[in-house]
Amino acid sequence: MLVRQLFDYETYTYTYLLGDTKNKVAAIIDPVDSQIDYYMQLLQEFGLELKAALDTHVHADHITALGSLRERTGTETYLGNPGDLDCADNPLQEGKDILIGDIKIEVLYTPGHTDDSYSFIVNDNGQQYAFTGDTLLIRGTGRTDFQNGNANTLYESLHKKLLKLDDTTIVYPGHDYKGWTQSTIGEERQYNPRLNICSKERFAEFMANLNLPNPKFMDVAVPANRSCGKN
Amino acid sequence: MLVRQLFDYETYTYTYLLGDTKNKVAAIIDPVDSQIDYYMQLLQEFGLELKAALDTHVHADHITALGSLRERTGTETYLGNPGDLDCADNPLQEGKDILIGDIKIEVLYTPGHTDDSYSFIVNDNGQQYAFTGDTLLIRGTGRTDFQNGNANTLYESLHKKLLKLDDTTIVYPGHDYKGWTQSTIGEERQYNPRLNICSKERFAEFMANLNLPNPKFMDVAVPANRSCGKN
Repeated sequence: MLVRQLFDYETYTYTYLLGDTKNKVAAIIDPVDSQIDYYMQLLQEFGLELKAALDTHVHADHITALGSLRERTGTETYLGNPGDLDCADNPLQEGKDILIGDIKIEVLYTPGHTDDSYSFIVNDNGQQYAFTGDTLLIRGTGRTDFQNGNANTLYESLHKKLLKLDDTTIVYPGHDYKGWTQSTIGEERQYNPRLNICSKERFAEFMANLNLPNPKFMDVAVPANRSCGKN
Repeated sequence: MLVRQLFDYETYTYTYLLGDTKNKVAAIIDPVDSQIDYYMQLLQEFGLELKAALDTHVHADHITALGSLRERTGTETYLGNPGDLDCADNPLQEGKDILIGDIKIEVLYTPGHTDDSYSFIVNDNGQQYAFTGDTLLIRGTGRTDFQNGNANTLYESLHKKLLKLDDTTIVYPGHDYKGWTQSTIGEERQYNPRLNICSKERFAEFMANLNLPNPKFMDVAVPANRSCGKN
């Protein structure tokens, strides 16, 4: 399996291209609309047909490329809670794996940053990868103060789902703001300060006091992304 | 072996931390002075002692952390042509491997971007990595118009050294400006437009006509880096 991490400088967003090079098919996670020409270049160079474009959640900080990629490649699109977001061809659902050639993408429902946040788990040759969107960041987590975010729910998603993964699982997050590109579940378990807050109540209190400014593109991005970036 | 790619947003520089987790020792390639606290954090969290800080060349776009890391950790430093750059403890020399625990760093002299440009080759568990500095970039190469750069020499370094590596070798460059984090020798052989220029003369002509502005920190960075970032 080919795993390629790509980065959008303007919004600090990581995008992931997964390729089954034997069957010549690919999936892309959290694509950014302004980067679409680069994705098309890579797909063409690798000779891969895009079969799935997935967003971990409705993003507030960049415009998704789901709609544009569907137009350009005919890919299936995957986003959000069943019945809630009609722009995508397929709602995400925990337990309903997405199969792209030999790549099996397991879907975990990990709400808290938003109420439509999912993580994707992929195994390849004994190595497990967790694409955690904004649920689990490197030495951090997503915020919980908009889009029906909820600190209690995030705490549950982190401790009862993501931290149940093996320590060797590579964590590929949706963003990083200090230039770190990856982590592992074991590292985050040990060194992520927010995972070491000792109770759900203390975690909720901590999250309630972050007082972060809104993302600068939020007013444009959220409505656009609820239409797969195409409104 | 642990391989961790790190990124400095201000100068688009990739830094690489290599760790032998069994013997608890590490090497770092192309560290950036402003990021030193992050490197110290990672070394501490992984329980690694820094034994080698290496620059692929005297950089023109950022201040190296070689001197600062030596002060903070006592690490050995490695840089440039024998006898030419006295700030580093050890000159680099092709064929003179650097051993850090079980990690063997092979040194290739790959001049052309500058006359003191080296690449580092590391093998781990059947996977080969090439840390190519600014000699080979993803779908590009370093420029050749300052610091004794020479397009003919760069052409030789690319075609007679780096392209002799196996196609599956992962290419980890010194920079990328479009958010691509890695490549392979096979990909670059096939899709790097500058590697597909059909003669040394045409390549030199192409490089002579790039007309690039100087890097914005060049006047500060080059003299500072000739003193390991500590003048």
